[in-house]
Amino acid sequence: MPESALLRAQKELLCYGSTGVSVMEMSHRTPMFDEILQGTKQKLRDLLRIPEKYEILLIQGGATLQFASIPMNLIENGFADYAMTGNFSTKAAREAKKYGEVHIACDTAPTGHDRIPTQSELKISEGAKYFYYCSNNTAFGTEWNYVPETKSPIVCDMSSDILSRPIDVSKYGLIYAGAQKNMAPAGLTVVIIDRALAGKHLPITPEVMEYETLIKTDSLLNTPPCWCIYMLGLVLDWLKEQGGVEAMEVLKKERSAKVYGLLDDSKFYIPHAIPSGRSDMNITFRTPSEELDMEFVKDAAAQGLINLKGHKVAGGIRASLYNAMPMEGVDRLVSFMKDFEVKHRV
Amino acid sequence: MPESALLRAQKELLCYGSTGVSVMEMSHRTPMFDEILQGTKQKLRDLLRIPEKYEILLIQGGATLQFASIPMNLIENGFADYAMTGNFSTKAAREAKKYGEVHIACDTAPTGHDRIPTQSELKISEGAKYFYYCSNNTAFGTEWNYVPETKSPIVCDMSSDILSRPIDVSKYGLIYAGAQKNMAPAGLTVVIIDRALAGKHLPITPEVMEYETLIKTDSLLNTPPCWCIYMLGLVLDWLKEQGGVEAMEVLKKERSAKVYGLLDDSKFYIPHAIPSGRSDMNITFRTPSEELDMEFVKDAAAQGLINLKGHKVAGGIRASLYNAMPMEGVDRLVSFMKDFEVKHRV
Repeated sequence: MPESALLRAQKELLCYGSTGVSVMEMSHRTPMFDEILQGTKQKLRDLLRIPEKYEILLIQGGATLQFASIPMNLIENGFADYAMTGNFSTKAAREAKKYGEVHIACDTAPTGHDRIPTQSELKISEGAKYFYYCSNNTAFGTEWNYVPETKSPIVCDMSSDILSRPIDVSKYGLIYAGAQKNMAPAGLTVVIIDRALAGKHLPITPEVMEYETLIKTDSLLNTPPCWCIYMLGLVLDWLKEQGGVEAMEVLKKERSAKVYGLLDDSKFYIPHAIPSGRSDMNITFRTPSEELDMEFVKDAAAQGLINLKGHKVAGGIRASLYNAMPMEGVDRLVSFMKDFEVKHRV
Repeated sequence: MPESALLRAQKELLCYGSTGVSVMEMSHRTPMFDEILQGTKQKLRDLLRIPEKYEILLIQGGATLQFASIPMNLIENGFADYAMTGNFSTKAAREAKKYGEVHIACDTAPTGHDRIPTQSELKISEGAKYFYYCSNNTAFGTEWNYVPETKSPIVCDMSSDILSRPIDVSKYGLIYAGAQKNMAPAGLTVVIIDRALAGKHLPITPEVMEYETLIKTDSLLNTPPCWCIYMLGLVLDWLKEQGGVEAMEVLKKERSAKVYGLLDDSKFYIPHAIPSGRSDMNITFRTPSEELDMEFVKDAAAQGLINLKGHKVAGGIRASLYNAMPMEGVDRLVSFMKDFEVKHRV
């Protein structure tokens, strides 16, 4: 989280503006909370240039609940194309099978999810209700650098790279993101949906998962995660001050280039993803042995470089370079990596 | 929210303990967050004396998602008894019909949900998978002062009166509560479930709604609402210092007696609930006219007494006296009510 957002939250924690109450105790059906909700939505609309025909939903449940919400709302007893390029897209495809048929547009599991397929490698179905992909794979460290051409609306899980670069929202039917990587504290899910896609949910859809109902009620069918929505607003203020998503993209390229540069020059570290599919957000690599991987994570933590252990499904080492990561943190990481290599290179 | 919990949160906002990070940016798969999660669960277990055979889930989605989760997990293509004594239990019954059959144990709608049925008024089915009720009806201001005798496991929505009195958890199969009334900021749902009830979910249940999976993963199938869980821990610390749920019960009786005493002495105010079914948490009443109701709400707000407007489905006036309401606030309300009566009594 950006420090400026945390400082502002700290200052206002007991009293938001002149209201006399904390955002944490505000009723969601008051004008003061409505101001926060509408303000946060507008900031997001401005930063990502979201066209008017898209609704922004700020809801609970996480990306994992969306794995079910998406087919429940969009598959209409038909089928959908799923691009399986990592842990979360594979989970989403498995969940979708409960509600309809899944066509596999690609599956990169055989090569350890080390790549993103090219457009010509994708199997695009005729008659699919939607095409699903996850734009950045946190566990394996790959990221789509293009928007696929499809024959159906595109649904994209952007949980781990939303707000890290400009996107052309009009190319998508639905974009969603768990907020906890690049946006806000855990507990908030952002859904950006073309309103034309709503209203086709299966009869077994829980009411609070119906996009049509959530649009009609402006995310207020039930109590929303008010504090997280407020924090998202503060993060978006910070992001705007930094120069918006255009500036974030410059920074993310700069951050990742420092680490990939070191990996490519090294005869010690082994990068996981092939260069064309590399993620700027999550950089995955190994040392020559699992023991050294563990030592790397431990030694790094001792120097204040935390969360470097690879995702449990992928193993190895993972450096996550989200928006709020200061360049100084990247430089410290690179410096640590160089020292570690010198110390352990045979 | 108790001020002491807010002050502690403010102090630790940028740095939790010696971790160097905010709880808002903590990964949920770290020892530091596990300490918060396990600590919060243990505090709740101690305060409510929750037997070991019950699991405590701390999850997203709100009570509204539980309206669907409960039948999806427990109804097994059979039927369940629903006591409809207000807005939320009626919604829960409507949602359950998507997944099984609903037997109406009672429905107080014909008298404007102004009462709680007696045990002998309840229709208890043979062979029901569970009996469902909502212990406190926020919109209409009624509260169950007994636990019904049933032939199936009891499922109870305690969103608005959990932690306001001791409960005998062993009488229930499942207790749940949206946290935003008496526990924590909006965005957290607490489920206390007899583990023996898990594992019978319908095949169409989203994975993140399967109680069996949530139990197995200790609420960490996906990212939980970390900040809200942390805040719940701080609220529980405060509650323990105050003397626990036993002390809360004394206070809630004292608070509500002040307001009901005034209502019963008044020839101006019209209480909604009949005395045997009155809620200590939400006191609902009217003045002689809708115009005066509106004036009451407006004048009260001008004196810092906010949130007195009745729920949209019930109208009128509602005073919500949750755990964190200081007695001084109740006294100010009573004083305002007396003045308002004097001013407007014909």
